[in-house]
Amino acid sequence: MTEDRVLLSHGDGGQMMADLIARVFVSRLGTGSPPGDDAARFAGAGRLAFTTDAFVVDPIFFPGGDIGKLAICGTVNDLATAGARPIAISASFILEEGLPVSDLERIADSMAEAAGDARVQVVTGDTKVVPRGRADRVYITTAGVGEVPPGVSVSGAGARPGDVVLVSGPVGDHGLSVLSRREGLEFESGIESDCAPLGGMVQALLAAVPGAVHVLRDPTRGGVAGALNEIARQSGVEIEIVESAVPVRPAVAAACEMLGLDPLYAANEGKMLVIAAAEQAECALSALRAHPRAAEAALIGRVAAGRGRVLLETALGTHRILDRHVGEQMPRIC
Amino acid sequence: MTEDRVLLSHGDGGQMMADLIARVFVSRLGTGSPPGDDAARFAGAGRLAFTTDAFVVDPIFFPGGDIGKLAICGTVNDLATAGARPIAISASFILEEGLPVSDLERIADSMAEAAGDARVQVVTGDTKVVPRGRADRVYITTAGVGEVPPGVSVSGAGARPGDVVLVSGPVGDHGLSVLSRREGLEFESGIESDCAPLGGMVQALLAAVPGAVHVLRDPTRGGVAGALNEIARQSGVEIEIVESAVPVRPAVAAACEMLGLDPLYAANEGKMLVIAAAEQAECALSALRAHPRAAEAALIGRVAAGRGRVLLETALGTHRILDRHVGEQMPRIC
Repeated sequence: MTEDRVLLSHGDGGQMMADLIARVFVSRLGTGSPPGDDAARFAGAGRLAFTTDAFVVDPIFFPGGDIGKLAICGTVNDLATAGARPIAISASFILEEGLPVSDLERIADSMAEAAGDARVQVVTGDTKVVPRGRADRVYITTAGVGEVPPGVSVSGAGARPGDVVLVSGPVGDHGLSVLSRREGLEFESGIESDCAPLGGMVQALLAAVPGAVHVLRDPTRGGVAGALNEIARQSGVEIEIVESAVPVRPAVAAACEMLGLDPLYAANEGKMLVIAAAEQAECALSALRAHPRAAEAALIGRVAAGRGRVLLETALGTHRILDRHVGEQMPRIC
Repeated sequence: MTEDRVLLSHGDGGQMMADLIARVFVSRLGTGSPPGDDAARFAGAGRLAFTTDAFVVDPIFFPGGDIGKLAICGTVNDLATAGARPIAISASFILEEGLPVSDLERIADSMAEAAGDARVQVVTGDTKVVPRGRADRVYITTAGVGEVPPGVSVSGAGARPGDVVLVSGPVGDHGLSVLSRREGLEFESGIESDCAPLGGMVQALLAAVPGAVHVLRDPTRGGVAGALNEIARQSGVEIEIVESAVPVRPAVAAACEMLGLDPLYAANEGKMLVIAAAEQAECALSALRAHPRAAEAALIGRVAAGRGRVLLETALGTHRILDRHVGEQMPRIC
């Protein structure tokens, strides 16, 4: 195949599609699975986790990552929220006619690198092509299967009054990186996406404080505020956050100021919220800080008895309800 | 939520997204998994199969089905090609701003019905919204996890010289149904998509002739010709098909004639190609015909020693190579 742009005929199940897949994907992501079969096969496990996400981020390349890295990390991190080790990932592509094949190759390279970093393989996939103007360059949907180690039981419904709320590092980097790039501000801001696989960090944490981690949640779309609201509702508790304790890089704070955004609602792609038993708070925080992806982990709040809301103690010492946002804040952030 | 069209703010991780998911998806597809968690969990199995497909069919509603039914059946059938029973399905949606919510509800209803038919549950999902003109109403990506029963070993690389080639029923119905609808010919043609889950049929076949089924492949995009070419290459054999033995409904044959298409290249969404040991041919055919989804199953050819090609004995008695097609035949057929 010598075309340098994706054509409709690359999606119709014929020779050109086979050539594109071999050239772009199998060469980079190919694995031990029998090539050509429609379903990958592998050994099972005691308890499985299963997750999926569609990625439609705009732009597809941004400081610190791209849609391919995001698609791998997003699914690995969703498995990590179940305490699961990734076993296998699937990747499904919707390509807009006219996409430069070199862009697709760059994305596949990035997926291969992220999968290697996360120690997981892309074992199966699919490619469709739609006419110009029926997609925006490339959309990727990944799904992941993981194994939940024996004794691990974390869930959004697991928060209990008295628990502590930790975050693995500064918030808002991904959201502000993508928005800065979109607004043409990336050179001034210097903000890079935090996009990274967190499976290793989570396994280290679970090993350090066995049984003490009650909830894991990666605050992606909707940010820390969105994720904590979900947890508060699932667990039927009140979560109290201290605004000044939430780490935010100065550049992110400045960009938020300029764009009129709140970092607590900005997306993260390499951070984890951890709700854990208070008596293990120090130990959990130390385990996080010992990992290179959570060196700036912080204790940001506590769980109290209540009924599904999040309360914010502001920098001024006042209290207000930190609700889910209503209406559009940041479209196509992931 | 009272909006009757999808808005960008339905995709941003806030309250409106939560409301849309609860109204449209959880009410129809909701399951025993803890609602709100990012990863579903279930008991594992000895040997797993894992598959994914993106669905971008145009139009999204067509005679005999819609994009939702297609998304469930496509993934169930890909699992069936591994001889696997479905355990769990994920569904990820990319919605175009402005999509009527009623369309989405109709699609979710259809997915629920197909999943019930296939005895599998949608256990996890994701929803993204892109601006008007960045998608075409709705794209769905499903992934599926299945369990391969002990002793079952089928693969595209399993065809052996001497094997017989069976097809579970008339070919081309799905492709011609979608194209007829697109061309405004559906009322004249009366062709309906064959879209159906084939897991039960495959399990009945495997039980009837244990060890004798070497290859299972659903001839979707690229049709029977595309699927047989893939198998011939994977197995390193020659496959010989008798054109007059391939069942084609008269209406499909007539529509193909009118549109200048070959039914051997037209997509199917409820048919299975079966390559099996010759000594079990009659028994396999009887087992297929005993199942309501394969009443018109037929023996259409044989496997010979060779090097990865498909040979067609035409209705005139001549022989020609049946290649994968090159270039666009039927875009957005699934």
